[in-house]
Amino acid sequence: MNSLSDLVNIAKTKPSKRLVVAAAEDLTVLKAIQNAVNAGIISPILIGNRQKIIDICKTIGFETANFEIIDEPDPAAAPYKAVGLINAGKADILMKGIISTATLVRSVIAKDNGLRKSQTLSHFALFESKFYHKIFGVSDAALNIAPTFDEKVNIIVNAVELMHKLGNSNPKVALLAPVETISEKIESTIHAALLTMMNKRNQIKGCILDGPLSLDNAISSEAAKHKGIVSDVAGDADIIIVPDLDCGNALYKSLLFLGGAKSAAIVLGAKVPIVLTSRADTEDNKLLSIALAASLE
Amino acid sequence: MNSLSDLVNIAKTKPSKRLVVAAAEDLTVLKAIQNAVNAGIISPILIGNRQKIIDICKTIGFETANFEIIDEPDPAAAPYKAVGLINAGKADILMKGIISTATLVRSVIAKDNGLRKSQTLSHFALFESKFYHKIFGVSDAALNIAPTFDEKVNIIVNAVELMHKLGNSNPKVALLAPVETISEKIESTIHAALLTMMNKRNQIKGCILDGPLSLDNAISSEAAKHKGIVSDVAGDADIIIVPDLDCGNALYKSLLFLGGAKSAAIVLGAKVPIVLTSRADTEDNKLLSIALAASLE
Repeated sequence: MNSLSDLVNIAKTKPSKRLVVAAAEDLTVLKAIQNAVNAGIISPILIGNRQKIIDICKTIGFETANFEIIDEPDPAAAPYKAVGLINAGKADILMKGIISTATLVRSVIAKDNGLRKSQTLSHFALFESKFYHKIFGVSDAALNIAPTFDEKVNIIVNAVELMHKLGNSNPKVALLAPVETISEKIESTIHAALLTMMNKRNQIKGCILDGPLSLDNAISSEAAKHKGIVSDVAGDADIIIVPDLDCGNALYKSLLFLGGAKSAAIVLGAKVPIVLTSRADTEDNKLLSIALAASLE
Repeated sequence: MNSLSDLVNIAKTKPSKRLVVAAAEDLTVLKAIQNAVNAGIISPILIGNRQKIIDICKTIGFETANFEIIDEPDPAAAPYKAVGLINAGKADILMKGIISTATLVRSVIAKDNGLRKSQTLSHFALFESKFYHKIFGVSDAALNIAPTFDEKVNIIVNAVELMHKLGNSNPKVALLAPVETISEKIESTIHAALLTMMNKRNQIKGCILDGPLSLDNAISSEAAKHKGIVSDVAGDADIIIVPDLDCGNALYKSLLFLGGAKSAAIVLGAKVPIVLTSRADTEDNKLLSIALAASLE
């Protein structure tokens, strides 16, 4: 994959996906669904206030006759209905409508009839930047505030599994820190060093881990050479694992708002991919996120 | 100031500065000095291994006859000599040569004959990005690992003082966090909220603080509007204060390596500005950092 727009074509080669939206009565959400339907990558099931959904669809010329709308006027109940459909084998992708992320996540991690697969749900974003020679992923920039060491293992496993599904059988994973040396005072460097050794001892498989690496060393061979870093990952990372949410969110926003990058993002670790677009996302970004979710099987 | 290259012109309007380099026997350092001398913004005093300095200067055609070289073959002793010169009123800017940042900082914070002014030394970087409508600063991306609340106050004061010296009498300061709401689980949001209130109560003066703000809200009015944020700072920040080094370093490197930004960076909080260029900096970046230091009086 050279461009994120390839995701739309990849999704088309996969079996058609049924995407269920929890609390779909929202203009920007329905526009994203309309674009994804027009691109031919999903068939939607809309849960929410039926009348509002129909009214909004009319304003954007989105023909509702051909797909299912399930009336559920209570937005808090919508995600539980959506999760129920997925567990009944009637939908393949979950998408957040006009409810908070926390509300959606609660329905996903519910003990009874939830969707949990991994112990850790994690946000994963693919980026296309004109300043880097390939598509790369960043995780976790949105869900885990201060992941413990074990949670970081899960975040890595989630990300590596996704790259496998996209055809990269041995992704290079950079563990981000502010320096490339191990310092007792900087927890990110300690976690990174331990995770790298776990990979060397086969406790984390299917990828090449290296860290601590600062961002320049992760993505620039020249910067890594300046520092004398010998690494299979440095300068060529497929995935960047950030130390925490402060760092991940700033990096994510910097790439989008101060780097001109494109992105596609989903939540991993549940039985199905979860799409969480936000109001501030561009139309393109929303379509690519749905395409990413639809490309994974 | 619309462009960082203006710094060279600003420096020329100020009284000529004497820049002392601690352990100057390094090719990239001497090239940076040569460029700054050619630009007419400093006169250098080079401390270090005299013969090595002269030999390197010859290889780059840098005429040493017109400036002082102080022989000090021990790189660990060089910064103490440099600090001594500054305290004796014989130099105006300190620059790191081929010694570690830690070695330089030790000489600056030494109780006897040091250069400490603020309780906190902090790194400050100015950026020029084609994705933002003005020059903006980021602090601290290099020195303070996990600043305490009090240290953050000092980091802000250092940054605001610098902006005052550059002619911005009331800079807008965004306190970065991953979200714009206050959450007990996210320390950066708590610090940001408290610092904002300190500004409102006149405990931090000479600036308009606002936070927590995520990066998109700090620099994009549109993103802030999407979130319903009413703020004098949102979308128009002059300074971005990061929560910690993990975040600051990733943002700094992202701007340079994945955003095509230009930067100029110095260390603040000592009696004189300190220039710490690194091998990975571009020639341009090094010159601009020296120009920034030379623009502050």
